[in-house]
Amino acid sequence: MTAIGIIGSAGRMGMAILAELGAQGLTLAGGVDRHEGDLAKLVPDSDVLIDFSSPAALAATLDACTRAGKPIVIGTTGLEAEHHRLIDEAARTIPVLQTGNTSLGVNLLAALVEEAARRLDDDWDIEIVEMHHRHKVDAPSGTALLLGEAAAKGRGIALADHSERGRDGITGARAKGAIGFAALRGGSVPGDHSVILATEGESITLSHRAENRAIFARGAVKAALWLKDQPAGRYAMKSVLGL
Amino acid sequence: MTAIGIIGSAGRMGMAILAELGAQGLTLAGGVDRHEGDLAKLVPDSDVLIDFSSPAALAATLDACTRAGKPIVIGTTGLEAEHHRLIDEAARTIPVLQTGNTSLGVNLLAALVEEAARRLDDDWDIEIVEMHHRHKVDAPSGTALLLGEAAAKGRGIALADHSERGRDGITGARAKGAIGFAALRGGSVPGDHSVILATEGESITLSHRAENRAIFARGAVKAALWLKDQPAGRYAMKSVLGL
Amino acid sequence: MTAIGIIGSAGRMGMAILAELGAQGLTLAGGVDRHEGDLAKLVPDSDVLIDFSSPAALAATLDACTRAGKPIVIGTTGLEAEHHRLIDEAARTIPVLQTGNTSLGVNLLAALVEEAARRLDDDWDIEIVEMHHRHKVDAPSGTALLLGEAAAKGRGIALADHSERGRDGITGARAKGAIGFAALRGGSVPGDHSVILATEGESITLSHRAENRAIFARGAVKAALWLKDQPAGRYAMKSVLGL
Amino acid sequence: MTAIGIIGSAGRMGMAILAELGAQGLTLAGGVDRHEGDLAKLVPDSDVLIDFSSPAALAATLDACTRAGKPIVIGTTGLEAEHHRLIDEAARTIPVLQTGNTSLGVNLLAALVEEAARRLDDDWDIEIVEMHHRHKVDAPSGTALLLGEAAAKGRGIALADHSERGRDGITGARAKGAIGFAALRGGSVPGDHSVILATEGESITLSHRAENRAIFARGAVKAALWLKDQPAGRYAMKSVLGL
Repeated sequence: MTAIGIIGSAGRMGMAILAELGAQGLTLAGGVDRHEGDLAKLVPDSDVLIDFSSPAALAATLDACTRAGKPIVIGTTGLEAEHHRLIDEAARTIPVLQTGNTSLGVNLLAALVEEAARRLDDDWDIEIVEMHHRHKVDAPSGTALLLGEAAAKGRGIALADHSERGRDGITGARAKGAIGFAALRGGSVPGDHSVILATEGESITLSHRAENRAIFARGAVKAALWLKDQPAGRYAMKSVLGL
Repeated sequence: MTAIGIIGSAGRMGMAILAELGAQGLTLAGGVDRHEGDLAKLVPDSDVLIDFSSPAALAATLDACTRAGKPIVIGTTGLEAEHHRLIDEAARTIPVLQTGNTSLGVNLLAALVEEAARRLDDDWDIEIVEMHHRHKVDAPSGTALLLGEAAAKGRGIALADHSERGRDGITGARAKGAIGFAALRGGSVPGDHSVILATEGESITLSHRAENRAIFARGAVKAALWLKDQPAGRYAMKSVLGL
Repeated sequence: MTAIGIIGSAGRMGMAILAELGAQGLTLAGGVDRHEGDLAKLVPDSDVLIDFSSPAALAATLDACTRAGKPIVIGTTGLEAEHHRLIDEAARTIPVLQTGNTSLGVNLLAALVEEAARRLDDDWDIEIVEMHHRHKVDAPSGTALLLGEAAAKGRGIALADHSERGRDGITGARAKGAIGFAALRGGSVPGDHSVILATEGESITLSHRAENRAIFARGAVKAALWLKDQPAGRYAMKSVLGL
Repeated sequence: MTAIGIIGSAGRMGMAILAELGAQGLTLAGGVDRHEGDLAKLVPDSDVLIDFSSPAALAATLDACTRAGKPIVIGTTGLEAEHHRLIDEAARTIPVLQTGNTSLGVNLLAALVEEAARRLDDDWDIEIVEMHHRHKVDAPSGTALLLGEAAAKGRGIALADHSERGRDGITGARAKGAIGFAALRGGSVPGDHSVILATEGESITLSHRAENRAIFARGAVKAALWLKDQPAGRYAMKSVLGL
């Protein structure tokens, strides 16, 4: 039996993964969180790790996994360039899968968005809007950015040079080729995302809706079970899902 | 026959109103625009004026109407507190109807939003999202603000103290009682608006969609025909529509 | 402490109510289901009953409640005219609350739909579309019919004379004044409902989305606690919710 | 200059094509309609024909085009198997392009739907819902069926064996692998289509919205200009659009 270790076990996603391991009858190696648990003990005891903690903890986590030669799935959001550099470095020694979203639906949506953006020219404006529960502290969501990256890739541009965020006040007309982002917050919405492609007279909308967090936990566990048999390297969800 | 004068006749809405007058067989007194036409001649020649120009032109327009004792419908967006003061002043002498949106559908929606906000407490988060064509230069739209005012009135709060606009980056959790705004831009969308009320486990969405600008032109003309028979005072679309 | 009895305790809603009683620390008098439990014992042991079973069981259930003088909340769907007659009869002796939906959001939506239909004439076409999980066996949903009744009431017509269901094939143009229904089925959707009012050039959409069944359980328990203190009579959710 | 002949020139689409030819400064060879015009004269005078008339007229139209050796774009909806046989036969002699929808957006959407259906197994339920103006006489729309065909192709099944239409009453649980259709009618909606793929806990929605009929006219003209240079054979819009 594969023993799975959870980093960030007291958070919303950590608890959802615990519930999913229980539902599937899988083995929990243990969990650590900001306030309790021992990373130095958990990593060697695990066959594979799943991390939904915070960017600040990433360096220590990757260091422990690299030393022990353990694969790790990283679902933490809010990563900066420096974190991606650390991940690339660790991936020379161990298998690392980093993703903004572990659901099959979102990853398929990203593939469709990339293809639509490839086939349509920039006379089609791209807008991404997401809604999440009132407790979310950052905007836009990691998944909205993942979809924006897919659109930019399909169009052959760099997202950083074309994203238009937080529109408010006298903005002037829309910049040609921009990819716009808008974030809604309210209630307990687990996660809605829409990518709109609009031109003169018509528009296409590609959307995903999550009903609950269990789909993300299920995807993370699926990724972990897949990752433990891979060689060192950096992976994305689409390999797990065969997209 | 009532003779209608158009201020801002070369703009998108001005042209839509010209078309509507033609379709209904009504009399055009004439039009003025930034670049041509004579306001000093148009106003006395008209029985009622319709203004879809710019905030900068408002003082001169109201002055001309007041001197000539002519009623005026104002659909110009982007008005500031100072403009509203000028309108209040003119309304002591002439009938003035100012509105962020002249369609029946939007004004009914505003009435429903006000009622929903009155009946639900602030454990229901309110978000307003709108989409308009790529040429629109300001955000959020005048109609989104009109809907926000309706929500604030229903809830018994001042919109200015509770609006949350242009969410981006590390925002922290949503403020209790906030009314959020988001603006999408793309293609040729004439105007979509949604007000979302979301709480734990459920949400209500109240939306309006305009298929074309003719509905706004029709509403403006209806307002003008109604206004010319009213006494001096400041009016809103809901009186025209009997809401 | 109020002791609540559940009729239909093994169904999806029965189980959700059991969970809600647990979450609120309320007292369960017991449950009966098609396959087990003793109605004759449960009813006298309960202070109030909640019924989410089947229309076929209703006569016996109402008889037991009437004999024991116990109030009952009925959320069972698929009721026919005969069942409503039985409910009216029982309501002469005991308090009975019957409803197609126990959530605050849906009942507020119904009030807004009724008002919109009252204020708009029949040049606005009314369509109702709902989506539920793949296991649902009837169409349209009880909630869609509840919304249709609200629209018909607002417009001052009888729903039975104007409903247009299951559109397929050569239908001819839409009948003026019709209220259309469409049902989508798929996945695990707990319940989405939209009422669309569409006219030349514009449309209004009033929607509700349930994220899970807990909101309905919460509403049913709230209704039961409210109902036990009422005199004999027939009640609806809007009294519980103060709408 | 290419001379374009219009069959069904007095209908909604015929008139939209006339307007489009005017806007693009293209040459109209002439038009025929049920009530007036001479097909025997129009066809030889045209370099290419566009047909948005009725299925009943198709045999005579194809006969005239075949005799004169003229290419034809067929956008008429409501075609039966017999009509498709006639088209195949004509396509041995002349270039024929038949399509349920001439817009770029809808044809790209169909490609995305086919791909999504290919990558997801039948634990994802497929539903197609469309809304059109109150004058439309058939349901579901030709475009909804085109999208259904794309979904069936992606999944490797025959649409005819798996479509579920006009759901109403006691339907039983959803059949595994079914493709459901629902039709909404109201106001002046030019054409909205959504394909929903829903599974346990999540769903994907792929939608298209037309703001006006001009996009279809533009696509039909583009198809005609492309078709006139092709060899005999049967074509679809995706070749015109390079999809």
